[in-house]
Amino acid sequence: MREGLLIVISGPAGTGKGTVVGRLLEKNTNIKLSISKTTRKPRPGEKEGVNYFFVSREQFEEEIKNERFLEYAEYNNNYYGTPKDFVFEALEKGYDVILEIETKGALQIKKVFSDAVLIFLLPPSIEELYKRLVKRGTESEDEIRARLEIAKNEIKLVPEYDYCVINDNVDDAAEKIQKIIEVEKLKSRRFDIQSFLKE
Amino acid sequence: MREGLLIVISGPAGTGKGTVVGRLLEKNTNIKLSISKTTRKPRPGEKEGVNYFFVSREQFEEEIKNERFLEYAEYNNNYYGTPKDFVFEALEKGYDVILEIETKGALQIKKVFSDAVLIFLLPPSIEELYKRLVKRGTESEDEIRARLEIAKNEIKLVPEYDYCVINDNVDDAAEKIQKIIEVEKLKSRRFDIQSFLKE
Repeated sequence: MREGLLIVISGPAGTGKGTVVGRLLEKNTNIKLSISKTTRKPRPGEKEGVNYFFVSREQFEEEIKNERFLEYAEYNNNYYGTPKDFVFEALEKGYDVILEIETKGALQIKKVFSDAVLIFLLPPSIEELYKRLVKRGTESEDEIRARLEIAKNEIKLVPEYDYCVINDNVDDAAEKIQKIIEVEKLKSRRFDIQSFLKE
Repeated sequence: MREGLLIVISGPAGTGKGTVVGRLLEKNTNIKLSISKTTRKPRPGEKEGVNYFFVSREQFEEEIKNERFLEYAEYNNNYYGTPKDFVFEALEKGYDVILEIETKGALQIKKVFSDAVLIFLLPPSIEELYKRLVKRGTESEDEIRARLEIAKNEIKLVPEYDYCVINDNVDDAAEKIQKIIEVEKLKSRRFDIQSFLKE
């Protein structure tokens, strides 16, 4: 078991997953981020192969048929999925791989990949999440209220995750995730007793 | 679940458990070391209440009867046990408590205290353990050979432990254990969802 670790990070919109994961990648060259495929149209500023791989509905469904996804789900009539090849190749080469995905996809991963480490990133509080969404200014008050309700429902899934990290500070949150990765590698099931005793 | 963590550290004689735990205690005032009780006679330099609490066989058996031990075992006709009161009081006050005990006792703890974190401390290799035991100079060659056999059998119990830390450097090993403690506190089952959502 010398291969890399599969790390799944979820968390309500506005929690700062992207920023925390970005900080983690800056500091750890051994971590690779998996880029999801989607049938959603790119938003202004989003780049192919950076934010997502943007594909047609036909192509996505073809890839579902050919079992090219580790997990996929549909939200608002758009597919989102994690390409299998990239993840497996990177893990085999010894890289740790991060998936930044929604709760549905995360729980699918845990089922097929019991060794995956699921981390839930939380805002410091619901009130703080509200403030962050207002500050972001991309949604109306009604949309923000709806997002808060979704967030609360997502947070109820925390017990399905292995760890829970509060993002009150980007550096601290990234450091905590880094420590989780280090410590997961000390799990005794990853230790090769036979070769240790043979030496 | 705001109370402290119960950490059990085992490892073959000569691995350096005492030194690593000492380093850990120097750097973490939130960690308390549980002192075992024993019916064995003090060795030169050993101090009452520092290395062990030394008691008579009668007293020890009386305390077994009164269920004063979290775990106990007999080795070479001597009892060794972990007093219950100290551990529970310290945990309730929010301290993390370390037990440095043998494998038998460790597995007893895991049964009655499923939340305990079991860490196995390993030497860098069996050969290195041999060298350390020779250097220590307290045992004959035959005794050292016997100790190595005991060590190998103990190491076979690594899968029963949660984590496995190699002591190739005291500071690194202590730091790894410190990280395990921090990361265990991020486990999602320790997170109070209800109060988070109520705020």
